[in-house]
Amino acid sequence: MTNPGMKCSRCRRPASHRFPQHNLRLCDACLEIFTERQVERAVKKWRMLAPGQEVVAAISGGKDSLALWQILARLGYRVRAVHISLGFGEFSQASLDACRAMAQRLDAPLEVRGLEDWAGAAVGEIALANRREHCAVCGSLKRHLLNRLVFELGADTLATGHHLDDEAGRLLGNLMRRHAGYLERQWPALEGMAPPAGGGVGLARKVKPLVRLSGDEIRAYAQSQGLPAHLASCPRSKGATLTNYQDALELMEQRMPGTKRDLYFGFLRQKAGPPPPPEPGGLCRQCGGPTRQETCGACLLLRRARETAARRAGQGGAA
Amino acid sequence: MTNPGMKCSRCRRPASHRFPQHNLRLCDACLEIFTERQVERAVKKWRMLAPGQEVVAAISGGKDSLALWQILARLGYRVRAVHISLGFGEFSQASLDACRAMAQRLDAPLEVRGLEDWAGAAVGEIALANRREHCAVCGSLKRHLLNRLVFELGADTLATGHHLDDEAGRLLGNLMRRHAGYLERQWPALEGMAPPAGGGVGLARKVKPLVRLSGDEIRAYAQSQGLPAHLASCPRSKGATLTNYQDALELMEQRMPGTKRDLYFGFLRQKAGPPPPPEPGGLCRQCGGPTRQETCGACLLLRRARETAARRAGQGGAA
Repeated sequence: MTNPGMKCSRCRRPASHRFPQHNLRLCDACLEIFTERQVERAVKKWRMLAPGQEVVAAISGGKDSLALWQILARLGYRVRAVHISLGFGEFSQASLDACRAMAQRLDAPLEVRGLEDWAGAAVGEIALANRREHCAVCGSLKRHLLNRLVFELGADTLATGHHLDDEAGRLLGNLMRRHAGYLERQWPALEGMAPPAGGGVGLARKVKPLVRLSGDEIRAYAQSQGLPAHLASCPRSKGATLTNYQDALELMEQRMPGTKRDLYFGFLRQKAGPPPPPEPGGLCRQCGGPTRQETCGACLLLRRARETAARRAGQGGAA
Repeated sequence: MTNPGMKCSRCRRPASHRFPQHNLRLCDACLEIFTERQVERAVKKWRMLAPGQEVVAAISGGKDSLALWQILARLGYRVRAVHISLGFGEFSQASLDACRAMAQRLDAPLEVRGLEDWAGAAVGEIALANRREHCAVCGSLKRHLLNRLVFELGADTLATGHHLDDEAGRLLGNLMRRHAGYLERQWPALEGMAPPAGGGVGLARKVKPLVRLSGDEIRAYAQSQGLPAHLASCPRSKGATLTNYQDALELMEQRMPGTKRDLYFGFLRQKAGPPPPPEPGGLCRQCGGPTRQETCGACLLLRRARETAARRAGQGGAA
């Protein structure tokens, strides 16, 4: 994608990155400025964080979350990095190693939690017991655990490394399947709810500071900054629906540069009002977290997995 | 896409066609029944045509329009086949030959009009003079001329060979670009307007009887029926935007069979009311056809082309 005589659009020195979607060529130094400014603009535009605010960042060890961590720290936010280890063997070990290397690089603490330890079972077992897609179960449990951790750490905001490709892909899927509710709640920042008066778990604010950056921009940033990212994609995520929408968008982006930006930011521009407030509901009678059912989705997943395990153990004992 | 031991889902004889979107395998005979029934259902569901009604069919010579012609004739409609010759050299000659072969096969008359003769200039010149995309200009002029011909032939309804891939691709583009007006008017059948009291040009009803069939279904039908279709795609249509949306949809369809159907028919199902009536406007002071401007779009295109030609001739004379 680069050619030898290419010049940086900002400083006219030799450029090594090319972004057709902006008709932009950048050298490493200007890429750093460009990338970090895009984050700064997103944070400001959607009022994601107050200056110096404490924010829990979900760090998977991939390029996106490591870039998020570094940029938020450089922009002066107090980042509490949290890594949820998924228990997927070598993949998860390499992810954890990447997070630890990044913590060392930034000289910052890293909170690590094991999803299996917390859930009492492997994600695969829980998915099987619930007859649900692996990715959907993993995502649901991860979001639940991250939400709890935000309040355990005394914070109220969770930042994730979702970027333009993620959001535009999700938007395409929601548009094509006419998910009006998801469309209404698709924003780069969503407000949360404070924990109930007696203490416990609220609903964390969710912010996506990388939303103005595409995957290729973040990849270039991560490479040129030498971030110790774990670049493999999750071995269990094959056939995830989101990937199909993202790949279709990528095809359109290659032929019509700017497609993703036009889709996502055009969608945000035409929204009638501000982001909707969280829908108030009750508290899960299992975990005390926010839910609109009696028991929250994550606790239901875990309960069914426990019931299945108990039934199997019972059958084993009777045999 | 077929394997030797495959059996027809309808009659259990050896099948030679496979459609994952319906989880269906068909032999030639059952494919014929399936295809023609899909057209029958579409015509009925969207009240496209009354039994035996006269209908002008736009016949390009490709597989879609030849299938349309044959099926409408077999279903008992009085088809007035019209071919607009575009003047694109060999491509247009082969298209015309295909239409003539089909007319012979059906022992039916064929009305042929030359777009260049009517417009007084080649499509390429008109596009250049107007600084517009070739495909957009060609489509606009073709639609205009076809509309006139419907009334010249004493009919009021125009049938075209647009199928599911066309409509789903156009829908995807309209959804992604938030074209609310186009979305509102995207229906398999749209009402027209009678010619003004003094005679002249009205707005033809537009119907798309192939809308329940995908491109691969029509291709299989055309092949197994031995329709004399001209299979090349237009040499001037490279880079047409619709193709990008269709290719992206095809990618999703391959991975998630049924994507096109779910998109298009889901969209039609959630429409609040019936198809909107035509928006009343005035008459073009150039051609007397319906328009909401003083001069209709096609006449404007032609006028600018004439002006450019006159300017060039003037410069040539002065030199």
